[in-house]
Amino acid sequence: MPIATPLTTLLEISHPVLLAPMDVIAGSRLVAAVSGAGGFGILGGGYGERTWLERETAKLASLSAPFGIGFITWSLAKRPELLDIALSAKPSAIMLSFGDPAPFATKIKSAGARLICQVQDEAMARQALEAEADILIAQGTEAGGHGASRTTVDLVPAIVDLAAGVPVVAAGGIADGRGLAAMMMLGASGVLLGTRFYASEEADGAQEAKRRICAASSGSTVRGIIFDLSRNNVWPAPFTGRCLVNDHARRWSGREVELMQNVAGVAADYAAAKAAGNFDLAAVIAGEAVGLIHDIPPAAEIVERIASEAEQLLAGRRNSIVSA
Amino acid sequence: MPIATPLTTLLEISHPVLLAPMDVIAGSRLVAAVSGAGGFGILGGGYGERTWLERETAKLASLSAPFGIGFITWSLAKRPELLDIALSAKPSAIMLSFGDPAPFATKIKSAGARLICQVQDEAMARQALEAEADILIAQGTEAGGHGASRTTVDLVPAIVDLAAGVPVVAAGGIADGRGLAAMMMLGASGVLLGTRFYASEEADGAQEAKRRICAASSGSTVRGIIFDLSRNNVWPAPFTGRCLVNDHARRWSGREVELMQNVAGVAADYAAAKAAGNFDLAAVIAGEAVGLIHDIPPAAEIVERIASEAEQLLAGRRNSIVSA
Repeated sequence: MPIATPLTTLLEISHPVLLAPMDVIAGSRLVAAVSGAGGFGILGGGYGERTWLERETAKLASLSAPFGIGFITWSLAKRPELLDIALSAKPSAIMLSFGDPAPFATKIKSAGARLICQVQDEAMARQALEAEADILIAQGTEAGGHGASRTTVDLVPAIVDLAAGVPVVAAGGIADGRGLAAMMMLGASGVLLGTRFYASEEADGAQEAKRRICAASSGSTVRGIIFDLSRNNVWPAPFTGRCLVNDHARRWSGREVELMQNVAGVAADYAAAKAAGNFDLAAVIAGEAVGLIHDIPPAAEIVERIASEAEQLLAGRRNSIVSA
Repeated sequence: MPIATPLTTLLEISHPVLLAPMDVIAGSRLVAAVSGAGGFGILGGGYGERTWLERETAKLASLSAPFGIGFITWSLAKRPELLDIALSAKPSAIMLSFGDPAPFATKIKSAGARLICQVQDEAMARQALEAEADILIAQGTEAGGHGASRTTVDLVPAIVDLAAGVPVVAAGGIADGRGLAAMMMLGASGVLLGTRFYASEEADGAQEAKRRICAASSGSTVRGIIFDLSRNNVWPAPFTGRCLVNDHARRWSGREVELMQNVAGVAADYAAAKAAGNFDLAAVIAGEAVGLIHDIPPAAEIVERIASEAEQLLAGRRNSIVSA
């Protein structure tokens, strides 16, 4: 029996599995695959590249399943017109991360879309609830890409207790049905997955990046500012970025100030490496769930596997509990 | 119906709830209370204070319920004779943390006790399995006191997958039935709790420390080396210690090298503050679960609450799943 939660009801989806709006990686093809399988695809609007957004939203126009579009809030604030482009694609929800959602809330809700806010601590959760967020994503430090320091096990119950009935979705370190079932025990109504969907057929990422995600074990990612420094994209505290440890991360670990002082040369090399797909230098942005990821299946298969495993666990058919 | 797992079978206990052997805090009174309630109390042998150990083990002699005794492995290696004192108390298990358990495994098992090994990554888990550990504790960075960097959500499934049937107990960030149920979904057979039992009537801690644990919110602990530096007790990497943020932690944060250079004066002040119960200076050693802890009940009530809440969640009677 499919897992029904306040989240699946609200978003009219079959499985409480959301695609993280990974910048560049979560394009229309991946969104369509996740939503088509009964999950909820969220387009990676990211920093806001207008041409990309127009092209990808156009491709979603024919999608019958519900989907969302995500933005980096502080970046959207510089180009607020992109929200109009997004809303014209008739998404079921807009997801905002990293910044104050209030300036965008009215427009989003007036357009009939739900407001999903990703938060990394209680203060951000309160800000999102004041902006009348319909769904909160509680993102633990295990997550790939930008995030903060609180862990998933710590943050999820804290945000659930604070949200007072607003559905909470857990993010960070989750890639299988065990994680979905565990997060539901903590009071979450679903999960949001990035890295797991990066390693899918439909993700717009380099094959070599996907291969490295499959090869990596838990404990082989690092949260810091090296890759942001190296691409001249430093975020304000408390936000840092998690990626796979590679030669570049090892080289500059603990030498961030020196890196900053030499950024001109490093940035040129970094950009060239990124363009060439050299992931010994360029970062593969991924979270601690890499240890649970060993293949690159179609995204629909990922949704089905996670839902099915969690259903069995929640029904008591596949866990460490000894039958009486 | 009580939760039965391979752990409850192995240790012959009613509830899969273990007391962390907190140095100084987990004395015979707390052990007796946890074990008496159907959990598994583990005496905090810690660094190995002979007089304390003899006195506390003597008090456990009359306990009819199963219990364990824990040691810091690298410290026990300096005083191996303490293991004989511990084993003469006929514990059901000896728990070893932070170091190679191999030198002690044969003696422990020959005495008829189970070997419980706490691990913080896969390499330590492999070492423990080679020493034929009967139970592994997978300790996430959320835990209070000494530990390492991997998070509970990341570490538990990784160790479960590696343990190949050896029961895994989750530790770090857990203080209620939601946490127990969640960890069971990740494949754990139980949980080990420190901070939750610190804030109990029977814990051998200062009342003011317990009060601060109740008052603290999630996100108000910090992992680092400041309190260890301040008491001349620096551990080798990768181990650091988590405690409540206080004036002393704020004062020296980011200035650890300077602290080391001024340690003589600081250590005297720190020791005096500890003796006087001044927790603006001395650390309250506690984990991220502080956010879930708001009272100081008898330990038996804690065991019962956690077991009961988890039972209800696992039976599908108290979670966010919408009934069909």
